[in-house]
Amino acid sequence: MKRKGLLIVVSGPSGAGKGTVCREFLRNNPETVLSISMTTRQPRRGEVDGENYFFTDVATFENMIEEGGFLEYAKVYGNYYGTPKSFVKENLMAGRDVILEIDIQGALKVKEKFDEGVFIFIVPPTMEELKRRIQGRGTETSEELLRRFNSAYQEINFITRYNYIVINDSVKEAAKKIEAIITAEKCRVDRNKDFYTSLQGGIDNALSFNR
Amino acid sequence: MKRKGLLIVVSGPSGAGKGTVCREFLRNNPETVLSISMTTRQPRRGEVDGENYFFTDVATFENMIEEGGFLEYAKVYGNYYGTPKSFVKENLMAGRDVILEIDIQGALKVKEKFDEGVFIFIVPPTMEELKRRIQGRGTETSEELLRRFNSAYQEINFITRYNYIVINDSVKEAAKKIEAIITAEKCRVDRNKDFYTSLQGGIDNALSFNR
Repeated sequence: MKRKGLLIVVSGPSGAGKGTVCREFLRNNPETVLSISMTTRQPRRGEVDGENYFFTDVATFENMIEEGGFLEYAKVYGNYYGTPKSFVKENLMAGRDVILEIDIQGALKVKEKFDEGVFIFIVPPTMEELKRRIQGRGTETSEELLRRFNSAYQEINFITRYNYIVINDSVKEAAKKIEAIITAEKCRVDRNKDFYTSLQGGIDNALSFNR
Repeated sequence: MKRKGLLIVVSGPSGAGKGTVCREFLRNNPETVLSISMTTRQPRRGEVDGENYFFTDVATFENMIEEGGFLEYAKVYGNYYGTPKSFVKENLMAGRDVILEIDIQGALKVKEKFDEGVFIFIVPPTMEELKRRIQGRGTETSEELLRRFNSAYQEINFITRYNYIVINDSVKEAAKKIEAIITAEKCRVDRNKDFYTSLQGGIDNALSFNR
Protein backbone atom coordinates (compact mmCIF):
# COMPACT_ATOMS: atom_id res chain seq x y z
CA MET A 1 0.00 0.00 0.00
CA LYS A 2 1.31 3.39 -1.01
CA ARG A 3 1.92 5.60 1.98
CA LYS A 4 0.05 8.91 1.91
CA GLY A 5 2.00 12.15 1.92
CA LEU A 6 2.07 14.49 4.88
CA LEU A 7 0.32 17.84 4.87
CA ILE A 8 2.60 20.37 6.55
CA VAL A 9 0.91 23.63 7.43
CA VAL A 10 3.39 26.45 8.07
CA SER A 11 1.72 29.42 9.61
CA GLY A 12 2.31 32.29 11.98
CA PRO A 13 1.70 35.99 12.38
CA SER A 14 2.42 38.42 9.59
CA GLY A 15 6.09 39.37 9.82
CA ALA A 16 7.25 36.09 11.39
CA GLY A 17 9.07 35.20 8.18
CA LYS A 18 7.12 32.07 7.23
CA GLY A 19 7.58 32.74 3.50
CA THR A 20 11.36 33.00 3.77
CA VAL A 21 11.55 29.87 5.93
CA CYS A 22 9.38 27.89 3.48
CA ARG A 23 11.52 28.94 0.52
CA GLU A 24 14.67 27.83 2.35
CA PHE A 25 13.00 24.53 3.25
CA LEU A 26 11.89 23.89 -0.35
CA ARG A 27 15.35 24.70 -1.70
CA ASN A 28 16.69 21.77 0.39
CA ASN A 29 13.63 19.53 -0.10
CA PRO A 30 12.62 19.92 -3.74
CA GLU A 31 10.54 16.71 -3.57
CA THR A 32 8.05 18.46 -1.28
CA VAL A 33 5.20 20.10 -3.17
CA LEU A 34 4.33 23.69 -2.36
CA SER A 35 0.62 24.38 -2.27
CA ILE A 36 0.08 27.70 -3.99
CA SER A 37 -2.74 29.80 -2.61
CA MET A 38 -5.18 31.72 -4.71
CA THR A 39 -5.82 35.35 -3.82
CA THR A 40 -7.69 38.37 -5.03
CA ARG A 41 -5.23 40.84 -3.55
CA GLN A 42 -2.91 42.86 -5.75
CA PRO A 43 0.55 41.37 -6.32
CA ARG A 44 3.31 43.04 -4.32
CA ARG A 45 6.43 44.15 -6.15
CA GLY A 46 8.36 41.08 -7.30
CA GLU A 47 5.54 38.58 -6.75
CA VAL A 48 4.92 36.22 -9.65
CA ASP A 49 1.54 34.70 -10.59
CA GLY A 50 1.57 30.90 -10.22
CA GLU A 51 4.66 31.06 -8.03
CA ASN A 52 3.87 33.20 -4.99
CA TYR A 53 0.11 33.05 -5.51
CA PHE A 54 -2.44 32.47 -8.19
CA PHE A 55 -3.77 35.99 -8.56
CA THR A 56 -7.37 36.12 -9.62
CA ASP A 57 -10.44 38.36 -9.53
CA VAL A 58 -13.26 38.31 -7.01
CA ALA A 59 -15.84 36.79 -9.39
CA THR A 60 -13.65 33.82 -10.29
CA PHE A 61 -12.76 33.24 -6.63
CA GLU A 62 -16.40 33.32 -5.52
CA ASN A 63 -17.32 30.83 -8.23
CA MET A 64 -14.72 28.42 -6.89
CA ILE A 65 -16.14 28.87 -3.38
CA GLU A 66 -19.58 27.91 -4.71
CA GLU A 67 -18.13 24.80 -6.32
CA GLY A 68 -16.43 23.73 -3.05
CA GLY A 69 -13.04 24.08 -4.69
CA PHE A 70 -11.14 25.30 -1.62
CA LEU A 71 -9.66 23.41 1.29
CA GLU A 72 -10.00 26.69 3.15
CA TYR A 73 -10.54 30.29 2.21
CA ALA A 74 -10.80 33.52 4.13
CA LYS A 75 -11.11 37.21 3.67
CA VAL A 76 -8.13 38.99 5.24
CA TYR A 77 -7.62 42.75 5.03
CA GLY A 78 -10.49 42.82 2.50
CA ASN A 79 -8.94 40.27 0.13
CA TYR A 80 -9.75 36.61 -0.46
CA TYR A 81 -7.12 33.94 0.12
CA GLY A 82 -7.80 30.25 -0.50
CA THR A 83 -6.17 26.86 -0.92
CA PRO A 84 -7.31 24.97 -4.02
CA LYS A 85 -8.40 21.58 -2.68
CA SER A 86 -7.82 19.12 -5.52
CA PHE A 87 -4.15 19.98 -5.94
CA VAL A 88 -3.39 19.20 -2.29
CA LYS A 89 -5.42 15.97 -2.16
CA GLU A 90 -3.99 14.54 -5.38
CA ASN A 91 -0.42 15.06 -4.23
CA LEU A 92 -1.05 13.56 -0.79
CA MET A 93 -2.71 10.50 -2.33
CA ALA A 94 0.29 10.08 -4.63
CA GLY A 95 2.52 9.92 -1.54
CA ARG A 96 4.03 13.38 -1.90
CA ASP A 97 4.34 15.72 1.06
CA VAL A 98 2.61 19.04 0.56
CA ILE A 99 3.62 22.21 2.37
CA LEU A 100 1.03 24.92 2.87
CA GLU A 101 2.20 28.38 3.86
CA ILE A 102 -0.84 30.25 5.10
CA ASP A 103 -2.03 32.79 7.60
CA ILE A 104 -3.49 31.72 10.90
CA GLN A 105 -7.16 32.01 9.96
CA GLY A 106 -6.56 29.68 7.04
CA ALA A 107 -4.51 27.21 9.06
CA LEU A 108 -7.21 26.87 11.70
CA LYS A 109 -9.81 26.11 9.03
CA VAL A 110 -7.56 23.47 7.49
CA LYS A 111 -7.16 21.96 10.95
CA GLU A 112 -10.93 21.54 11.31
CA LYS A 113 -11.06 19.40 8.17
CA PHE A 114 -7.62 17.89 8.21
CA ASP A 115 -6.55 17.17 11.76
CA GLU A 116 -3.87 14.69 10.60
CA GLY A 117 -1.88 17.57 9.15
CA VAL A 118 1.23 18.86 10.92
CA PHE A 119 0.65 22.39 12.16
CA ILE A 120 3.74 24.53 12.61
CA PHE A 121 3.65 28.02 14.06
CA ILE A 122 6.55 30.24 13.04
CA VAL A 123 7.35 32.94 15.57
CA PRO A 124 9.91 35.72 15.77
CA PRO A 125 12.31 35.46 18.71
CA THR A 126 10.62 38.48 20.39
CA MET A 127 7.62 40.72 19.77
CA GLU A 128 9.99 43.68 19.29
CA GLU A 129 11.61 41.76 16.45
CA LEU A 130 8.18 41.08 14.93
CA LYS A 131 7.39 44.81 15.02
CA ARG A 132 10.71 45.65 13.41
CA ARG A 133 10.09 43.11 10.64
CA ILE A 134 6.58 44.32 9.86
CA GLN A 135 7.87 47.91 9.69
CA GLY A 136 10.94 46.89 7.69
CA ARG A 137 8.82 45.44 4.92
CA GLY A 138 7.99 49.06 3.99
CA THR A 139 5.26 48.24 1.50
CA GLU A 140 2.21 49.18 3.58
CA THR A 141 0.47 52.38 4.59
CA SER A 142 0.76 53.29 8.28
CA GLU A 143 -2.90 52.37 8.80
CA GLU A 144 -2.27 48.92 7.31
CA LEU A 145 0.85 48.60 9.49
CA LEU A 146 -1.10 49.24 12.68
CA ARG A 147 -3.73 46.74 11.59
CA ARG A 148 -0.98 44.17 10.99
CA PHE A 149 0.61 44.80 14.41
CA ASN A 150 -2.63 44.34 16.28
CA SER A 151 -3.58 41.31 14.26
CA ALA A 152 -0.18 39.68 14.85
CA TYR A 153 -0.47 40.34 18.57
CA GLN A 154 -3.87 38.71 18.76
CA GLU A 155 -2.85 35.80 16.56
CA ILE A 156 -0.11 34.67 18.95
CA ASN A 157 -2.92 33.39 21.18
CA PHE A 158 -3.75 30.69 18.63
CA ILE A 159 -0.36 29.05 19.17
CA THR A 160 -1.93 26.41 21.43
CA ARG A 161 -3.94 25.04 18.48
CA TYR A 162 -0.70 24.11 16.72
CA ASN A 163 1.58 21.11 17.14
CA TYR A 164 4.93 22.85 16.87
CA ILE A 165 6.57 26.21 17.44
CA VAL A 166 9.57 27.09 15.31
CA ILE A 167 11.42 30.21 16.41
CA ASN A 168 12.71 32.04 13.37
CA ASP A 169 15.91 33.59 14.64
CA SER A 170 17.87 31.98 11.81
CA VAL A 171 16.14 31.05 8.55
CA LYS A 172 18.52 28.13 7.97
CA GLU A 173 17.94 26.70 11.43
CA ALA A 174 14.18 27.21 11.21
CA ALA A 175 14.05 25.34 7.88
CA LYS A 176 16.12 22.51 9.37
CA LYS A 177 13.70 22.28 12.25
CA ILE A 178 10.83 21.82 9.82
CA GLU A 179 12.79 18.98 8.19
CA ALA A 180 13.28 17.35 11.57
CA ILE A 181 9.60 17.74 12.42
CA ILE A 182 8.61 15.98 9.18
CA THR A 183 11.07 13.14 9.78
CA ALA A 184 9.78 12.74 13.32
CA GLU A 185 6.11 12.88 12.35
CA LYS A 186 6.68 10.06 9.87
CA CYS A 187 7.99 7.99 12.78
CA ARG A 188 4.97 8.62 14.99
CA VAL A 189 3.34 5.37 16.07
CA ASP A 190 -0.14 6.60 15.11
CA ARG A 191 1.06 7.24 11.56
CA ASN A 192 2.51 3.72 11.23
CA LYS A 193 -0.42 1.49 11.94
CA ASP A 194 -0.03 -0.30 8.60
CA PHE A 195 3.60 -1.07 9.32
CA TYR A 196 3.22 -2.47 12.80
CA THR A 197 0.11 -4.38 11.84
CA SER A 198 2.20 -6.07 9.15
CA LEU A 199 4.91 -6.80 11.75
CA GLN A 200 2.25 -8.36 13.95
CA GLY A 201 1.16 -10.45 10.95
CA GLY A 202 4.76 -11.58 10.73
CA ILE A 203 4.53 -12.57 14.37
CA ASP A 204 1.53 -14.82 13.82
CA ASN A 205 3.29 -16.53 10.94
CA ALA A 206 6.42 -17.04 12.98
CA LEU A 207 4.46 -18.44 15.92
CA SER A 208 2.51 -20.91 13.80
CA PHE A 209 5.85 -21.95 12.33
CA ASN A 210 7.06 -22.67 15.87
CA ARG A 211 4.08 -24.84 16.73
CA MET B 1 14.61 29.92 33.55
CA LYS B 2 16.81 26.99 32.66
CA ARG B 3 15.08 24.63 30.28
CA LYS B 4 14.89 21.04 31.51
CA GLY B 5 16.51 18.30 29.50
CA LEU B 6 14.56 15.69 27.59
CA LEU B 7 14.36 12.07 28.67
CA ILE B 8 14.61 9.89 25.58
CA VAL B 9 13.69 6.27 26.14
CA VAL B 10 14.98 3.98 23.41
CA SER B 11 13.45 0.56 23.63
CA GLY B 12 12.34 -2.37 21.53
CA PRO B 13 12.44 -6.13 21.41
CA SER B 14 15.65 -8.01 22.00
CA GLY B 15 17.51 -8.19 18.69
CA ALA B 16 16.11 -4.95 17.26
CA GLY B 17 19.53 -3.35 17.57
CA LYS B 18 18.71 -0.63 20.09
CA GLY B 19 22.20 -0.75 21.59
CA THR B 20 23.94 -0.24 18.25
CA VAL B 21 21.60 2.58 17.31
CA CYS B 22 22.15 4.32 20.66
CA ARG B 23 25.91 4.08 20.32
CA GLU B 24 25.75 5.62 16.85
CA PHE B 25 23.49 8.37 18.15
CA LEU B 26 25.81 9.16 21.07
CA ARG B 27 28.84 9.27 18.79
CA ASN B 28 27.18 12.15 16.91
CA ASN B 29 25.60 13.75 19.99
CA PRO B 30 28.21 13.55 22.73
CA GLU B 31 26.37 16.24 24.77
CA THR B 32 23.54 13.75 25.41
CA VAL B 33 24.02 11.78 28.61
CA LEU B 34 23.63 8.01 28.51
CA SER B 35 21.82 6.57 31.48
CA ILE B 36 23.66 3.43 32.47
CA SER B 37 21.51 0.65 33.84
CA MET B 38 22.43 -1.47 36.78
CA THR B 39 22.10 -5.23 36.44
CA THR B 40 22.78 -8.43 38.31
CA ARG B 41 23.26 -10.46 35.14
CA GLN B 42 26.70 -11.70 34.15
CA PRO B 43 28.65 -9.48 31.74
CA ARG B 44 28.71 -10.75 28.16
CA ARG B 45 32.03 -10.96 26.37
CA GLY B 46 33.36 -7.43 25.77
CA GLU B 47 30.98 -5.67 28.13
CA VAL B 48 32.60 -3.16 30.47
CA ASP B 49 31.36 -2.27 33.96
CA GLY B 50 30.26 1.37 34.17
CA GLU B 51 30.03 1.60 30.41
CA ASN B 52 27.53 -1.00 29.20
CA TYR B 53 26.05 -1.58 32.64
CA PHE B 54 26.87 -1.24 36.28
CA PHE B 55 27.22 -4.89 37.17
CA THR B 56 26.31 -5.65 40.74
CA ASP B 57 25.12 -8.47 43.00
CA VAL B 58 21.57 -9.30 44.03
CA ALA B 59 21.96 -8.10 47.63
CA THR B 60 23.20 -4.64 46.62
CA PHE B 61 20.48 -4.32 44.00
CA GLU B 62 17.73 -5.26 46.43
CA ASN B 63 19.02 -2.74 48.94
CA MET B 64 18.71 0.01 46.33
CA ILE B 65 15.15 -1.12 45.58
CA GLU B 66 14.32 -0.74 49.28
CA GLU B 67 15.75 2.77 49.28
CA GLY B 68 13.68 3.80 46.25
CA GLY B 69 16.84 4.32 44.26
CA PHE B 70 15.50 3.17 40.87
CA LEU B 71 13.44 4.99 38.30
CA GLU B 72 12.38 1.52 37.21
CA TYR B 73 13.60 -1.98 37.76
CA ALA B 74 12.54 -5.39 36.54
CA LYS B 75 13.52 -9.00 36.61
CA VAL B 76 14.09 -10.27 33.08
CA TYR B 77 15.29 -13.80 32.34
CA GLY B 78 15.97 -14.14 36.07
CA ASN B 79 18.20 -11.10 36.34
CA TYR B 80 17.55 -7.65 37.78
CA TYR B 81 17.83 -4.58 35.57
CA GLY B 82 17.26 -1.07 36.89
CA THR B 83 17.77 2.60 36.15
CA PRO B 84 19.39 4.57 38.98
CA LYS B 85 17.01 7.49 39.58
CA SER B 86 19.20 10.31 40.91
CA PHE B 87 21.56 10.29 37.95
CA VAL B 88 18.73 10.79 35.47
CA LYS B 89 16.95 13.49 37.46
CA GLU B 90 20.07 15.53 38.16
CA ASN B 91 21.02 15.66 34.50
CA LEU B 92 17.52 16.59 33.35
CA MET B 93 17.34 19.41 35.91
CA ALA B 94 20.70 20.69 34.68
CA GLY B 95 19.23 20.95 31.17
CA ARG B 96 20.99 17.94 29.72
CA ASP B 97 19.14 15.40 27.59
CA VAL B 98 19.36 11.86 28.91
CA ILE B 99 19.01 8.79 26.74
CA LEU B 100 17.81 5.56 28.32
CA GLU B 101 18.30 2.34 26.43
CA ILE B 102 16.09 -0.25 28.09
CA ASP B 103 13.91 -3.24 27.47
CA ILE B 104 10.18 -2.88 27.05
CA GLN B 105 9.19 -3.82 30.60
CA GLY B 106 11.46 -1.07 31.91
CA ALA B 107 10.29 1.49 29.39
CA LEU B 108 6.65 0.98 30.29
CA LYS B 109 7.41 1.47 33.98
CA VAL B 110 9.31 4.68 33.23
CA LYS B 111 6.31 5.87 31.22
CA GLU B 112 4.01 5.45 34.22
CA LYS B 113 6.13 7.83 36.27
CA PHE B 114 7.53 10.04 33.53
CA ASP B 115 4.96 10.55 30.82
CA GLU B 116 6.77 13.65 29.49
CA GLY B 117 9.60 11.43 28.26
CA VAL B 118 9.95 10.59 24.57
CA PHE B 119 9.33 6.90 23.98
CA ILE B 120 10.96 5.40 20.91
CA PHE B 121 10.41 1.83 19.81
CA ILE B 122 13.18 0.38 17.66
CA VAL B 123 12.01 -2.37 15.32
CA PRO B 124 13.71 -4.56 12.78
CA PRO B 125 12.40 -4.12 9.21
CA THR B 126 10.74 -7.58 9.38
CA MET B 127 10.21 -10.33 11.94
CA GLU B 128 12.42 -12.64 9.85
CA GLU B 129 15.22 -10.12 10.25
CA LEU B 130 14.63 -10.01 14.01
CA LYS B 131 14.91 -13.78 14.16
CA ARG B 132 18.11 -13.72 12.14
CA ARG B 133 19.61 -11.09 14.45
CA ILE B 134 18.74 -12.92 17.65
CA GLN B 135 20.28 -16.10 16.23
CA GLY B 136 23.29 -14.23 14.84
CA ARG B 137 24.27 -12.97 18.28
CA GLY B 138 25.34 -16.52 19.02
CA THR B 139 25.90 -16.04 22.73
CA GLU B 140 22.79 -17.81 24.03
CA THR B 141 21.70 -21.36 24.62
CA SER B 142 18.97 -22.64 22.31
CA GLU B 143 16.47 -22.56 25.18
CA GLU B 144 17.33 -18.92 25.85
CA LEU B 145 17.03 -18.21 22.11
CA LEU B 146 13.51 -19.60 21.97
CA ARG B 147 12.55 -17.59 25.05
CA ARG B 148 13.93 -14.47 23.37
CA PHE B 149 12.00 -15.13 20.15
CA ASN B 150 8.71 -15.57 21.92
CA SER B 151 9.32 -12.61 24.18
CA ALA B 152 10.18 -10.39 21.20
CA TYR B 153 7.04 -11.50 19.38
CA GLN B 154 4.83 -10.64 22.33
CA GLU B 155 6.60 -7.37 22.99
CA ILE B 156 5.75 -5.96 19.56
CA ASN B 157 2.20 -5.55 20.88
CA PHE B 158 3.38 -2.83 23.25
CA ILE B 159 4.29 -0.59 20.33
CA THR B 160 1.07 1.42 20.73
CA ARG B 161 2.25 2.66 24.14
CA TYR B 162 5.19 4.42 22.48
CA ASN B 163 5.36 7.76 20.70
CA TYR B 164 7.65 6.81 17.84
CA ILE B 165 8.69 3.81 15.77
CA VAL B 166 12.17 3.81 14.28
CA ILE B 167 12.81 1.06 11.80
CA ASN B 168 16.38 -0.12 12.12
CA ASP B 169 17.25 -1.10 8.56
CA SER B 170 20.28 1.20 8.64
CA VAL B 171 21.95 2.09 11.93
CA LYS B 172 23.06 5.49 10.59
CA GLU B 173 19.55 6.38 9.40
CA ALA B 174 17.96 5.12 12.60
CA ALA B 175 20.31 7.29 14.70
CA LYS B 176 19.52 10.32 12.52
CA LYS B 177 15.83 9.71 13.04
CA ILE B 178 16.34 9.82 16.79
CA GLU B 179 18.11 13.17 16.34
CA ALA B 180 15.18 14.48 14.30
CA ILE B 181 12.70 13.24 16.90
CA ILE B 182 14.55 15.11 19.65
CA THR B 183 14.72 18.31 17.61
CA ALA B 184 11.01 18.03 16.82
CA GLU B 185 10.00 17.25 20.40
CA LYS B 186 11.78 20.40 21.59
CA CYS B 187 9.59 22.35 19.16
CA ARG B 188 6.32 20.88 20.43
CA VAL B 189 3.93 23.57 21.60
CA ASP B 190 3.23 21.79 24.88
CA ARG B 191 6.95 21.81 25.68
CA ASN B 192 7.24 25.57 25.05
CA LYS B 193 4.68 27.08 27.37
CA ASP B 194 7.32 29.30 29.02
CA PHE B 195 8.40 30.69 25.69
CA TYR B 196 5.01 31.55 24.29
CA THR B 197 3.84 32.91 27.62
CA SER B 198 6.79 35.29 27.50
CA LEU B 199 5.85 36.24 23.93
CA GLN B 200 2.33 36.98 25.14
CA GLY B 201 3.83 39.15 27.89
CA GLY B 202 5.63 41.01 25.10
CA ILE B 203 2.25 41.47 23.45
CA ASP B 204 0.73 43.17 26.48
CA ASN B 205 3.68 45.55 26.73
CA ALA B 206 3.44 46.40 23.05
CA LEU B 207 -0.30 47.01 23.25
CA SER B 208 -0.03 49.33 26.24
CA PHE B 209 2.67 51.19 24.32
CA ASN B 210 0.19 51.66 21.46
CA ARG B 211 -2.48 53.20 23.68
